[in-house]
Amino acid sequence: MVSSLRLPALTSLFSPSFTRRSTVSLRRRLHLRPPLAAGFSAQSAASSPTETEDRVDSKKSGRVQDRGSTDRVITPRSQDFNAWYLDVIANAELADYGPVRGTMVIRPYGYAMWEAIQDYLNVKFKETGHSNMYFPQFIPYSFIEKEASHVEGFSPELALVTIGGGKELEEKLVVRPTSETIVNHMFTQWIHSYRDLPLMINQWANVTRWEMRTKPFVRTLEFLWQEGHTAHATLEEAEKEALQMIDVYTKFAYEQAAIPVIAGRKSKVETFAGADKTYTIEAMMGDRKALQAGTSHNLGQNFSRAFGTQFTDENGLRQHVWQTSWAISTRFVGGIIMTHGDDAGLMLPPRIAPVQVVIVPIWKKVDEKTGVLDAASSVAETLKNAGLKVKLDDTDQRTPGWKFNFWEMKGVPLRIEIGPRDVSSGSVVISRRDIPGKQGKVFGISMEPSILEAYVKDRLDEIQSSLLQRAISFRDSNIVDVSSYEELKEAISMGKWARGPWSASDADELRIKEETGATIRCFPFEQPQGTKTCLMTGKHADEVAIFAKSY
Amino acid sequence: MVSSLRLPALTSLFSPSFTRRSTVSLRRRLHLRPPLAAGFSAQSAASSPTETEDRVDSKKSGRVQDRGSTDRVITPRSQDFNAWYLDVIANAELADYGPVRGTMVIRPYGYAMWEAIQDYLNVKFKETGHSNMYFPQFIPYSFIEKEASHVEGFSPELALVTIGGGKELEEKLVVRPTSETIVNHMFTQWIHSYRDLPLMINQWANVTRWEMRTKPFVRTLEFLWQEGHTAHATLEEAEKEALQMIDVYTKFAYEQAAIPVIAGRKSKVETFAGADKTYTIEAMMGDRKALQAGTSHNLGQNFSRAFGTQFTDENGLRQHVWQTSWAISTRFVGGIIMTHGDDAGLMLPPRIAPVQVVIVPIWKKVDEKTGVLDAASSVAETLKNAGLKVKLDDTDQRTPGWKFNFWEMKGVPLRIEIGPRDVSSGSVVISRRDIPGKQGKVFGISMEPSILEAYVKDRLDEIQSSLLQRAISFRDSNIVDVSSYEELKEAISMGKWARGPWSASDADELRIKEETGATIRCFPFEQPQGTKTCLMTGKHADEVAIFAKSY
Repeated sequence: MVSSLRLPALTSLFSPSFTRRSTVSLRRRLHLRPPLAAGFSAQSAASSPTETEDRVDSKKSGRVQDRGSTDRVITPRSQDFNAWYLDVIANAELADYGPVRGTMVIRPYGYAMWEAIQDYLNVKFKETGHSNMYFPQFIPYSFIEKEASHVEGFSPELALVTIGGGKELEEKLVVRPTSETIVNHMFTQWIHSYRDLPLMINQWANVTRWEMRTKPFVRTLEFLWQEGHTAHATLEEAEKEALQMIDVYTKFAYEQAAIPVIAGRKSKVETFAGADKTYTIEAMMGDRKALQAGTSHNLGQNFSRAFGTQFTDENGLRQHVWQTSWAISTRFVGGIIMTHGDDAGLMLPPRIAPVQVVIVPIWKKVDEKTGVLDAASSVAETLKNAGLKVKLDDTDQRTPGWKFNFWEMKGVPLRIEIGPRDVSSGSVVISRRDIPGKQGKVFGISMEPSILEAYVKDRLDEIQSSLLQRAISFRDSNIVDVSSYEELKEAISMGKWARGPWSASDADELRIKEETGATIRCFPFEQPQGTKTCLMTGKHADEVAIFAKSY
Repeated sequence: MVSSLRLPALTSLFSPSFTRRSTVSLRRRLHLRPPLAAGFSAQSAASSPTETEDRVDSKKSGRVQDRGSTDRVITPRSQDFNAWYLDVIANAELADYGPVRGTMVIRPYGYAMWEAIQDYLNVKFKETGHSNMYFPQFIPYSFIEKEASHVEGFSPELALVTIGGGKELEEKLVVRPTSETIVNHMFTQWIHSYRDLPLMINQWANVTRWEMRTKPFVRTLEFLWQEGHTAHATLEEAEKEALQMIDVYTKFAYEQAAIPVIAGRKSKVETFAGADKTYTIEAMMGDRKALQAGTSHNLGQNFSRAFGTQFTDENGLRQHVWQTSWAISTRFVGGIIMTHGDDAGLMLPPRIAPVQVVIVPIWKKVDEKTGVLDAASSVAETLKNAGLKVKLDDTDQRTPGWKFNFWEMKGVPLRIEIGPRDVSSGSVVISRRDIPGKQGKVFGISMEPSILEAYVKDRLDEIQSSLLQRAISFRDSNIVDVSSYEELKEAISMGKWARGPWSASDADELRIKEETGATIRCFPFEQPQGTKTCLMTGKHADEVAIFAKSY
């Protein structure tokens, strides 16, 4: 399956079983993005020499025995970031369009990235005192209407079940867009006294939002996420929890995904529908657009008042609980792709990579084959036993050159090459995905298990931190400090992020969005010292805000 | 949260935020099952002396310092199995009713049982070559209609989304009742040649079936499951896969859940809508009704023909793929409850238990408290470091007697008691959940970490196999070999399972269902030797079938 290179989007377009509606919307998508057709079409790849083949060429090093004729084409990132993104997703087999407009099938390689995210966060959530549970996805329509700003925010995006078991339902059911309402309905039954608090839960679930403009991983009609929900006796506790969880997300982004997010508070305009405060982590993608990669909300008493979620405090008084909610979704997979990828395709941080090390055996003559394959299997075994995720690509059907390109495109951090001479010398050749060509290639690493294991683990650690450092440099060189609206406009028009003091009105904020396309991404937690003057009004400002165009 | 004992069903019934529709359906449920009201009502428990309090009384052993006034009531299992089941679910806080009729909220303790099931199976699926992925839950209505028997089986149970983003949809969307149709739609795009086969995937997901009669875990409108889907080049390979997966389920049931399922083949009448063959594991519940606990289907070419899922074989010929699908759901949690529980509540096999060992510190005088709590913490630490799931119940607010009952009701396999005399002697008292009273209690087990760890692990292993042996004895003493329809009717009327040779018609099978309420659960893989004569027709039969009433 992994070596299947058929490209799904166009085949599905022409599949007779494809529904009319979906066909229309896919065509519209193709129409809007001309480079996509080339990227997704196997035929156009076969009929034109491509930059992918050029790459193979430039890498010929005596070890690569052929140019590796390839049927993959990835639009260069610099040429068209969006086309590049869609090409990478199709070619690396991360996801595919579902039959219903805006839905996505997450394929094994993409799902394994999500599993890496889940494995880490699930442990952290439990360590910080949360239990997993599961709430039904069907929510009575009346629930959504109870919290005024919540219904205003979500009602345009709802999918509604109106027929069940062949009958029209008395009350329409909302397919979960988020669970605050049903959570509060249940919390109201479970919480009675201060002894029941804090109540801290999480669920891993699918959610549905009827988005008009969709993009794989980044914004889809249905997506996967975790949503944490907590109830506390005091505002202070809720605030502490909301901050704790944005901190968990921040650490995850830096340490696992190698994404140097900027954590901060959303402006009032950008706050979650139903929250008092929203904290966010904002990531800079390769095209310098911002991606909101995770949020944590202090909900105050908005939902507890709407749903009557009360407890008896230590003095016997009835009080409304203070709440939080927080979420990270499959959108994060899109963030990883768009942070680290390059013209050759995906580039994955080792702690997220479904395959951390690929082993490519190389032989010319039949009598070399057995020795090379035996050595390759033994190296694979060594590294698997060391707890690494290893793929031995020993198929006869592709040349080593083809395999090099393929696994580079899939973003595998390290490649081990083993040829007959390596077998004789008891050593291997190791190439880093993050350093192209000869510079990233080291010869003569001993196959001796303890030496090889230590060497590989050290390199993976280096790649992990190197990707982070590279992303930090990129981010920092693309944030401009501004002190006037003119400077802000200039920064945004250059595609950068603008950071400047802000204390102006919501109306001013909306005007900036209208005039520049940029929004306040956050008031970052890390603030510069000194007095500040609002870039818009010239009045005193307490904080700088970051402005950027975003996904 | 764990120590909260408020009982949800009635409170939710009277909650002002409860929707009218849901209230009506909950009332109907209460009306149908009178004992439920008593079981769910905290008030009725407080106003009447109950068997729960009697239990506390009978267990007074000098170590229990009070009768542990309790607000829990569990209907005795022998008196009303269904009421007992619902009481256990409510009191052990496994699940609660959702606001929409037939939906269920899975609470942390119940969800942790599901996580234990997931953790085991997820590893086994990967070991047997399957990758996880995710398919959208919205399926175009036209897909469901493509496979004739599939639409016949599922169309009465569908939930349909007809409105999205405020607009009536052109085509109704089915909320996934199972995924064979959308899987085949995608497989058709991914499979081209024999090199793409076998294609073996799995997804963990929620599914919706508009059931009329629901029961927590056993049958709910929405439930959680895993569904495996595979495509193969030959019938033989598909058959081998279907059998392999029912074998994975069987091993799981025996070794983890301590449920001695009977594995076999479904009759044609009971085969999955769209399958050529369905394999099943059938479990005998405490009331001797059968629970279909997992199924694996050989789908033949039914879906590949309906969806045009073809591959080019090694000779260049186009062929339809051969497929399987297989699933286990949150229903299995219900099976664990109903297999092992007793009048005192849940009884959990150690490999499924969210808490394997509970530690209850006991002190009378204030000056004893510190020493006892220190020892208890140290024991807890020892066992946690040994990889066990440990709960130290050190709250001041409940008496030891109350805690004993509470954790017994929660099904925790082992209880460790530590009092001042134990601290002096450096030992603890250990009680087994599966052996009531003094017989299950051992004094003077050393606190020395290595001794204690080994002792506890041995006892947990013993409990695990003891639960299985007990369930095997119960099962075997309740299966009757029959050779005529009269004998079958008698066995069924006694609440037992009947096993007898069968080669009669589908019409005969349906007549038995009508006349006795029993269905063919399976033709078991393990068949008796010798020639067989059909119990209904007197003609030759190849196999015995098992008949039983079922959930």
